[in-house]
This record gives sequence, C-alpha cells and structure tokens, in this order.
Amino acid sequence: MADINVVAGQFVNYYYETFDNSQPEERAKNLQVLYRPSSMLTFEGTQLLGVEAIGERLAQLPKVQHKIVTLDAQPSSGAVASVLVSVTGTLAIDGENPMNFSQIFHLLPEAQSYYVFNDIFRLNIS
Amino acid sequence: MADINVVAGQFVNYYYETFDNSQPEERAKNLQVLYRPSSMLTFEGTQLLGVEAIGERLAQLPKVQHKIVTLDAQPSSGAVASVLVSVTGTLAIDGENPMNFSQIFHLLPEAQSYYVFNDIFRLNIS
Repeated sequence: MADINVVAGQFVNYYYETFDNSQPEERAKNLQVLYRPSSMLTFEGTQLLGVEAIGERLAQLPKVQHKIVTLDAQPSSGAVASVLVSVTGTLAIDGENPMNFSQIFHLLPEAQSYYVFNDIFRLNIS
Repeated sequence: MADINVVAGQFVNYYYETFDNSQPEERAKNLQVLYRPSSMLTFEGTQLLGVEAIGERLAQLPKVQHKIVTLDAQPSSGAVASVLVSVTGTLAIDGENPMNFSQIFHLLPEAQSYYVFNDIFRLNIS
C-alpha cells in the first residue's frame, strides 16, 4: 500500500493547485476527472451527487486562492487501501480577506490511482 | 439503513455533551466506549491508535465547552452502512474566547450501533 501521507499530499496539492490556477470554466473539466458517478460533494450544506452535478457547482465558484494550513490522513478501512483526508486552511476570493475553511476527502483506490468518493466542504467562520 | 443524518446527529450530540459535561477524569471512561482497538484519533497532528491511547489523550484535555455550528454526513461506502461525519464549531476552554475547530468522525456499524473508526481533530485558528 502506498504511504497514505504521500497519497494525501499529492492529491491535495493537485486539487487546490488545479482549483486555484484554472479559470472557472476550465476548473470543472480539470477537477471532474477526480470524481465518479457515485461521488458525493456536500458544499456548504448543499448535497450533490455525481460528476456532472459536482462539476457544475465547481464551475460556479469564483476565482479563489486556497492556502493549506493543516493536512491529516488516516486509512479509512482495514480491508481496502482507502484514505481519509482532512484539510484546514484559508481561502481568499478575489484577493479579499482570507476565510477559514475545512474540507474532507475520502479517496478510494481505482487501478493505480484514487478517486474522490466523499467530499465535504465548509467555511469555518463562526 | 438508518437515516445517516439521524445517526450523525445522535452521535455528535452524545459525543460533545459527554465531553463537555464529564470531569476530565470521567471523560475518558465515558467516551472510550465509542472506540475499538483499531480506532484512530489524530489530535492536532498527533496520531493515536486504540481505546487506551485515545482515552489517555482525552483525559488530558482541559474542561471545554463545544458549540456545533455545522454538521454534515455522507455514507462512506456503497456496501456497508458506514457514515462519514464532519463537524465545524467553536470551543471555549475555561470560559475563554472561543476558537474554531473542525472534527471528522468515520462511524462503522457494529450490531445495532456504531463505533468510531476514524477521528481527526483540528483547531482552525489561522
């Protein structure tokens, strides 16, 4: 089994670099490859299922700069090489004041790679 | 399958009410029942495995008041009735200014109930 911290680090770097460096209309195309028809995204409480719905939501978001502050990973199963990833950090919209966020990814193995089965995003601004 | 939002809500209410209303020396005993030998807790980056190690860490924490701000849940598997729970909120130590936190629980079914397989806690104070 690959080192889950390496898997988590590579995934998170790819996700946020792609998110931040793609124009919104390109972002969905570049990130949809990480999801499958059974993938779930709960974005600020709104539940979305599948590649198309998730891509549409990602395309609607403004240009954002994420900064990862903490990254934690654990194996999520004793039987499968799946990885639970927790990220906290800040994001800035159009250069405005950064807001705290937290995001979870549950990565399931597929061939020599992983896809996102669960994705939960929340601003943490209380 | 039980409604995962009900499962998540009942679990989270039990966890934080027990955490906040137990004296630290009682807290470990009251919360350890939620964990198993394979359970993992990553607490502010420190990785702990199993009931004893997790209980010891919980017992060391000061008296805290949690306030749940957001609660999200998703099924974490297409095969098993497991539940991924994401919490954001604030916690106050000894009545001081509240700090944002985020916590993830991955609940696996066992008999008619659930136990915590994954638990990741982070303050979100950047």
